Amino acid sequence: MASKIIPFPEMPVMEGIRLSSCYCGIKKKQQNDLVLIELPTKAVSAGIFTTNAFRAPPVLLCEEHLKKTPNTRYLLINSGNANAATGKMGKNSAESCCSTLSQLSQVQPQNILPFSTGVIGEPLPVECIQQALPTLLETLSKTSWLDAAKGLMTTDTFAKGATLSQPIGDEMLVVNGIAKGSGMIHPNMATMLAFVFVNVSIEPSLLKETLHLINEKTFNRISVDGDTSTNDSFVVVATGNPRIQIDKTQSREYQLFEQSLQNIAQQLALAIIRDGEGASKLLTIKVEAGKNSRECKNIAFAIAHSPLVKTALFASDPNWGRIIAAIGNAGVTDLDTGRVNVFLDEVQIVDGGQRAQDYSEAQGEAIMNQTDITLRIELGRGKTSETVLTSDLSYDYVRINSDYRS
Amino acid sequence: MASKIIPFPEMPVMEGIRLSSCYCGIKKKQQNDLVLIELPTKAVSAGIFTTNAFRAPPVLLCEEHLKKTPNTRYLLINSGNANAATGKMGKNSAESCCSTLSQLSQVQPQNILPFSTGVIGEPLPVECIQQALPTLLETLSKTSWLDAAKGLMTTDTFAKGATLSQPIGDEMLVVNGIAKGSGMIHPNMATMLAFVFVNVSIEPSLLKETLHLINEKTFNRISVDGDTSTNDSFVVVATGNPRIQIDKTQSREYQLFEQSLQNIAQQLALAIIRDGEGASKLLTIKVEAGKNSRECKNIAFAIAHSPLVKTALFASDPNWGRIIAAIGNAGVTDLDTGRVNVFLDEVQIVDGGQRAQDYSEAQGEAIMNQTDITLRIELGRGKTSETVLTSDLSYDYVRINSDYRS
Repeated sequence: MASKIIPFPEMPVMEGIRLSSCYCGIKKKQQNDLVLIELPTKAVSAGIFTTNAFRAPPVLLCEEHLKKTPNTRYLLINSGNANAATGKMGKNSAESCCSTLSQLSQVQPQNILPFSTGVIGEPLPVECIQQALPTLLETLSKTSWLDAAKGLMTTDTFAKGATLSQPIGDEMLVVNGIAKGSGMIHPNMATMLAFVFVNVSIEPSLLKETLHLINEKTFNRISVDGDTSTNDSFVVVATGNPRIQIDKTQSREYQLFEQSLQNIAQQLALAIIRDGEGASKLLTIKVEAGKNSRECKNIAFAIAHSPLVKTALFASDPNWGRIIAAIGNAGVTDLDTGRVNVFLDEVQIVDGGQRAQDYSEAQGEAIMNQTDITLRIELGRGKTSETVLTSDLSYDYVRINSDYRS
Repeated sequence: MASKIIPFPEMPVMEGIRLSSCYCGIKKKQQNDLVLIELPTKAVSAGIFTTNAFRAPPVLLCEEHLKKTPNTRYLLINSGNANAATGKMGKNSAESCCSTLSQLSQVQPQNILPFSTGVIGEPLPVECIQQALPTLLETLSKTSWLDAAKGLMTTDTFAKGATLSQPIGDEMLVVNGIAKGSGMIHPNMATMLAFVFVNVSIEPSLLKETLHLINEKTFNRISVDGDTSTNDSFVVVATGNPRIQIDKTQSREYQLFEQSLQNIAQQLALAIIRDGEGASKLLTIKVEAGKNSRECKNIAFAIAHSPLVKTALFASDPNWGRIIAAIGNAGVTDLDTGRVNVFLDEVQIVDGGQRAQDYSEAQGEAIMNQTDITLRIELGRGKTSETVLTSDLSYDYVRINSDYRS
């Protein structure tokens, strides 16, 4: 169940990028579980990875390879097995996959980035992957974006993609992105993989800086259940297209470039939250008039992580006492509760820390019955605001997570 | 549903303590919603209250009264309405109740402590309470412990009480406790009320010190859903019995006294977690060999708050990858995951950060099928350990919290 299925867009071909996908035998069900993405020779990539202490071996290897060179030639992604909490064996497994691909494709191992997502703690079936690589290389295609997105899925209910084309000088800037993610979505990008491709030429350091900037505004502002995974990765690839040079952070081109990347990352983040495990609703939490970004985020995430708020949301129950309790629970110790206002869409529920005089439960229910709800909180103590997206906590969340082991 | 119903014990009479309870019209269902507890003239009390920024008016009034005098004569508790997020009106409501009781009983308002638990944001029906007070005073009885415990209940499925008698010198030390709590149970004592009575004479400052000590070891080590309420209160009353004097913290008598209070608080905390909303299981999380208490607690609560761990627990699924992910998600950034061991009861699941060689899923399932499970984590980096209790996340949790508005 998703609160809304976002159709996979028509993705334009991007020069030098080819994709393939197959079922190699990792998943129990015969659904694609291996994806290969070939990048042009001049491609430059940058990545952000999970902060979980149990960072998976493929994550560690990605970082190792990116440290050696930003010139990535292949992304190799398997779903169904996270190759996490697998120790040295796990490291060897990820290296073996890269090594085989390196031999077959004649690129160095450090030009390959490996990714895994799925069940934690099981040995990665390396041979299945190795045996599938020749076929994957042979079937690379410029148009297989949807198949690639499908091959990333675990508990996802729909394939996630976003694309954008817009003029930049005389050229057309193209950004394509695919992602997976459903449960365990949290700030710091839990259990999500996102790959965004952009047809520009850019310095690796500037690409990395931009990646961090947009990640903070997009993937780090969503939460399904507050859990953070061992394998989260967000990678941006610049194809090295010499006709679009991005160099000065103050230039109009850079602004366009950054906004376009952010747009795609935001679309993918939204798709992930729409597909939150068992999600039937989308809650946009805006915390305004705070002293600083930190307290706004803390309050927004305290609400986003509250099982009581999330079940009330599922039940379309405007039980605003739970929202109040979550705000009070966010560690903002000097909060003047008498200045706090709360709005559901345009309806004011709480005025100065207590029920607004004109508020009637019927108004609240009408809004809670919607699929998309905006909860706005005014703290009345400053000028900073932050926005976080979350989903509800439904029977289906429990069902999916009681059953799930792909 | 509770993971285990703990029968209400036979409570001994305590000199000078009388209790009464009735239905005064706060709850929709005709179930007792008002409780009065009369204390002896020499009674001394101490309280710990919620840290939620939206502390309810009765909580603020309790603190005010306790600041004026520790000589409490009445505890007045209503269930079904939290009188929280009610602003000045809420303060007036709590004061009015105390004032009426003060007139009827001829004690000063500051000798009365008011408590409320239930739905947030609704005006407290003050008149219902005031009208019931004469009857409550007339029906006070030394034996009405169970009725009083029942009168505290909101989403609780059973009344919670604990008692202990043991020789201390030539006398018999008696500790009686009653409590309520089910959802929103978190460190910092969310949505719980606990009242513990002990037949000793003690300095108010020493009583307060002891209260903080035992609270830290008991109520602050349980979690149902990580939410913290606006009304949590834990009060200890010493009856002022001159035959048992507790004065030196180093004396054997003090040790006995403290241990006995802790024992009762622990029993009540356990009853609350047994009755966690929709709880079908009790998980005891022990984090051992940590550098300090803080990191052990952070890891234990990261596990206790993880919806993914809690749904796996409900499903009796030894999905230890989720435990690993929660450990890694606790902010212990320099954790050497290669030294982490995880045990379910006596079965070692994780050895040095990866699956233990001898571990089979059947072993894990056998333990996960139990109602009571101990999860033990060795961090391999120090000598500190901490224990936290939690329950699972079931369909019933979602049902109860989708439906609940008493």
